[in-house]
Amino acid sequence: MSASYAYLGPEGTFTEVALRTLPETATRELVPMVSVPAALDAVRNGEVEAAFVPIENSVEGGITTTLDELVAGRPLMIYREVLLSITFALLVRPGTKLSEIKTVTAHPAAQPQVRNWLRNNLPDVLWESAASNADGARLVQEGRYDAAFAGEFAAARYGLVALETEIHDAENAQTRFVLVGRPARPAAPTGADKTSVVVWQRDDHPGALLELLQEFAVRGVNLMLLQSRPTGEGIGNYCFAIDAEGHISDRRVGEALMGLKRVYPQVRFLGSYPRAEVDPKEVRPPRAGMSDSEFSAASDWLARCQDGRF
Amino acid sequence: MSASYAYLGPEGTFTEVALRTLPETATRELVPMVSVPAALDAVRNGEVEAAFVPIENSVEGGITTTLDELVAGRPLMIYREVLLSITFALLVRPGTKLSEIKTVTAHPAAQPQVRNWLRNNLPDVLWESAASNADGARLVQEGRYDAAFAGEFAAARYGLVALETEIHDAENAQTRFVLVGRPARPAAPTGADKTSVVVWQRDDHPGALLELLQEFAVRGVNLMLLQSRPTGEGIGNYCFAIDAEGHISDRRVGEALMGLKRVYPQVRFLGSYPRAEVDPKEVRPPRAGMSDSEFSAASDWLARCQDGRF
Amino acid sequence: MSASYAYLGPEGTFTEVALRTLPETATRELVPMVSVPAALDAVRNGEVEAAFVPIENSVEGGITTTLDELVAGRPLMIYREVLLSITFALLVRPGTKLSEIKTVTAHPAAQPQVRNWLRNNLPDVLWESAASNADGARLVQEGRYDAAFAGEFAAARYGLVALETEIHDAENAQTRFVLVGRPARPAAPTGADKTSVVVWQRDDHPGALLELLQEFAVRGVNLMLLQSRPTGEGIGNYCFAIDAEGHISDRRVGEALMGLKRVYPQVRFLGSYPRAEVDPKEVRPPRAGMSDSEFSAASDWLARCQDGRF
Amino acid sequence: MSASYAYLGPEGTFTEVALRTLPETATRELVPMVSVPAALDAVRNGEVEAAFVPIENSVEGGITTTLDELVAGRPLMIYREVLLSITFALLVRPGTKLSEIKTVTAHPAAQPQVRNWLRNNLPDVLWESAASNADGARLVQEGRYDAAFAGEFAAARYGLVALETEIHDAENAQTRFVLVGRPARPAAPTGADKTSVVVWQRDDHPGALLELLQEFAVRGVNLMLLQSRPTGEGIGNYCFAIDAEGHISDRRVGEALMGLKRVYPQVRFLGSYPRAEVDPKEVRPPRAGMSDSEFSAASDWLARCQDGRF
Repeated sequence: MSASYAYLGPEGTFTEVALRTLPETATRELVPMVSVPAALDAVRNGEVEAAFVPIENSVEGGITTTLDELVAGRPLMIYREVLLSITFALLVRPGTKLSEIKTVTAHPAAQPQVRNWLRNNLPDVLWESAASNADGARLVQEGRYDAAFAGEFAAARYGLVALETEIHDAENAQTRFVLVGRPARPAAPTGADKTSVVVWQRDDHPGALLELLQEFAVRGVNLMLLQSRPTGEGIGNYCFAIDAEGHISDRRVGEALMGLKRVYPQVRFLGSYPRAEVDPKEVRPPRAGMSDSEFSAASDWLARCQDGRF
Repeated sequence: MSASYAYLGPEGTFTEVALRTLPETATRELVPMVSVPAALDAVRNGEVEAAFVPIENSVEGGITTTLDELVAGRPLMIYREVLLSITFALLVRPGTKLSEIKTVTAHPAAQPQVRNWLRNNLPDVLWESAASNADGARLVQEGRYDAAFAGEFAAARYGLVALETEIHDAENAQTRFVLVGRPARPAAPTGADKTSVVVWQRDDHPGALLELLQEFAVRGVNLMLLQSRPTGEGIGNYCFAIDAEGHISDRRVGEALMGLKRVYPQVRFLGSYPRAEVDPKEVRPPRAGMSDSEFSAASDWLARCQDGRF
Repeated sequence: MSASYAYLGPEGTFTEVALRTLPETATRELVPMVSVPAALDAVRNGEVEAAFVPIENSVEGGITTTLDELVAGRPLMIYREVLLSITFALLVRPGTKLSEIKTVTAHPAAQPQVRNWLRNNLPDVLWESAASNADGARLVQEGRYDAAFAGEFAAARYGLVALETEIHDAENAQTRFVLVGRPARPAAPTGADKTSVVVWQRDDHPGALLELLQEFAVRGVNLMLLQSRPTGEGIGNYCFAIDAEGHISDRRVGEALMGLKRVYPQVRFLGSYPRAEVDPKEVRPPRAGMSDSEFSAASDWLARCQDGRF
Repeated sequence: MSASYAYLGPEGTFTEVALRTLPETATRELVPMVSVPAALDAVRNGEVEAAFVPIENSVEGGITTTLDELVAGRPLMIYREVLLSITFALLVRPGTKLSEIKTVTAHPAAQPQVRNWLRNNLPDVLWESAASNADGARLVQEGRYDAAFAGEFAAARYGLVALETEIHDAENAQTRFVLVGRPARPAAPTGADKTSVVVWQRDDHPGALLELLQEFAVRGVNLMLLQSRPTGEGIGNYCFAIDAEGHISDRRVGEALMGLKRVYPQVRFLGSYPRAEVDPKEVRPPRAGMSDSEFSAASDWLARCQDGRF
């Protein structure tokens, strides 16, 4: 295993920018991959130490794929997450004026973020989709389009200049990325952690999902994300990708996971890792009765009852 | 502590009959007490080893009292339960004919069991209540009433004869009794056990009881009895007396009890003891995922996840 | 039907005192009955207009009976409830001194209320049970016992005097009584109402009770009382007596009742009537989303969705 | 409004193939759009009658976008869904042999479907991403790549031939598309219908999602899909996209929707429409108590209770 990280390429995308916020990348080789599956396979095959891919709300695609890839195949584990605010620059060849732009390109997922800006500033422009935002920039460099939406950081790489920066529609302007490796002992809890699991439903009777959620609720474990995903074994067969607050070493989380495992034999643990968006000091404590010390106290009480000492 | 059992007296009642079904009574002194509280206080004070009292559906009163007494005061523990089918005999002085009966007596709680019989056989009789069914028999012996409803076994003691036996209305013709002692290690599980607890509610917001029940439901622990009882601290303050299937040493029951204890700080364990009404061979197994071996398997799985070995 | 009310006799008990707090009793004949079943049968048979009986936490017995009687047989309906604080007087024949009391009597259910007082004031007295507290007073009048615990109001009737009044142990010193009649349209809501129903369980699978409670919880209807009662059709067969906040004409209550009725085919409505213990001005409003106006607004919204007008 | 349907272009994609399975397309102009937002905006602006876009498990991107677009902006409604099995063909210029293929292209979302095939048949090929599968075919026509993965139907349009067909990895090989229009009265129920809504969470306390699901579960409405989606108003703010079995005119569905609306003031109805994957004859009936006739019966029962006729 080389000391390298794969990531969803090409170079010059938001994914690379997000990856470089991790300090350890200074000493790793960063390898762009053609797709999320390719990046994750490189981890599974031992070609790289880890892979860095978008997992939620990307403007570069790959989200659904990422989840489906983590759910299937040999087990992987999430070690880190990174949140990046996404804003676009309008990149042109030096000298191009706004009024001269007739064609514009970008990855299709960028469109919702720039739509309002386009309506207000370039209402008559022709949009064509590119395979990636970086590829769009390259196509502008080659003269095929007049302008591309991409990260401002892409300008230098492709010899372009930013006519406008900080373009983004109001909503969903953050993307979440994860660093994925082979299974190993999770990092110690920081006090602001997240645990990801995938649970396959047993059947589709009404209330099945409700029972699943009660495993968490009854232990006071807050859910941050819930996605049903088709399993590929016929329409109507779903698994649930779940992000829960807390770390697998928290007793409430551990008990909830064991509860899941008993009721839903097919559960895949995807990792416990620090939450990117919050400071541990700002994390709410677990609800009454759900701290590790309260678990210990209840355990002591049970032992006293079993011994008749009360 | 003497080797004696107190019971709800007087002698010659269904309670005594139920008590004598326990083999160990052959070597104990059996002490009738004037009331359930008196019987339980004798246990608390160490005057007797245990007390035997009705707890559900009695035809001799005492039910509500029993629960309230177990809930309050120094902790006690249930060690055994006995179910007794209740049928009445109509007891008269020798020589009395049915047509001569003008007055009849019994404990008021007997009335629902004999009402239909009275309507059909003695529609014009005058009913007066007695302090107990045995006391009613005594009053017939003394000539104060013509007939008494009591257990057939009471006839010999009071010099009466049974004009009719097996009298009971269709419904609720069983009474449940419990043998109560000071806290000690519960008997080992038999495979058909019951666990009794009392839980004090924290407040009366809608759904509070629902949360309580979810502690059991999520661990697959079936409830057999649920009673809300006023706590005496003002109207609207309740505690819940709960009988759950299983033994405190069953892992699903233990986890449910710990869950209760964390969320409802005031919980009183009342014992784990064999169920009187079922044969261990006929007990349904716990629902899928809730056996001790499945708890162990889930625990192993969690350890593997925590170690990254999957 | 005569303009008369039956009640659980005899005369001179707390039940009669509670009954006389209802203004309309001034113009009714009040008929003491030997038992709760007798009182309720008198209603069913049209002999009286209504019956007044204890239903919760009585010091005169009858509670379990009352519930069982309402649950079975021809339908009845609760129209009113009365709460009475129970305190005892120690009644003796004129001239008797405390130090001369060797024997004392009362209904067995009185014992828990006077136990502490007895321990502190008459530790060596002999207790014998009476069929009712009034009957105990009568037996003192006849000279059979030295003293009786009963309501202070009973002294005059039996030619006794109160050596001590306001005797009661701290807990459970209130009794709830209900006025029961044949089914008719419930009284209009007062803003502080209660609805009583009985629900027969369909089977005893784990979680059955949970589902029942969810019918209320999901509509924001708070439960005030929940009792499981054996149905008499064999051990393990229970019905649930439920008191819920609100009136059957409140939309949240109506929807919850319909939900119950669909899932549990055997439901018995026992009445909607004013809550005795609270002032309508102090009643909490229903939780967010559960007022009648919010039901109407949601209904309007649904109609707009069905019409495509949104 | 012209009689035209917009769809996610370009021409020659699976989306177009799926759209053409709708009989009414024979008489409509079909207009390819550059992106899902552009297609939906064309509906909102009245430029087209409806838009046809992928919504689940696409091999052409657009999924997340579709949901986000339906959730935000002026209301739209789903009228139809189409399921299409996705299999790829390997398209080359006439005369190209498999052994001559050095470069291959397709939309990135196609990669998971063809990965295994590539590993087995063209392990050393260079993959580059295209903006769409159709665009990849065009680039092969232009000579820029040796081969493209696309629908077999794309071959004729771009002067290519299929070297191999029916390529797909085992899983997730179906895509779901929806036909979206402006709000109007939904089509009548077919017996196998689906209702889509979006619900914004009120806050992120544990159990919030659980309460939401209970609104459905308590009315016996089965959920087919549940997605949490960030609302764009900061990390941790989610809405839930829900597909439920049944039609808004089914009483259980209507009551569940009203329940949602009361508790979660921000609910958006997205339509009731026929389920593509099942025959109405094979649809399970609603669970016991949840049919329209049982709703009616319960409603009648409530009316009788309110009138005192029982």
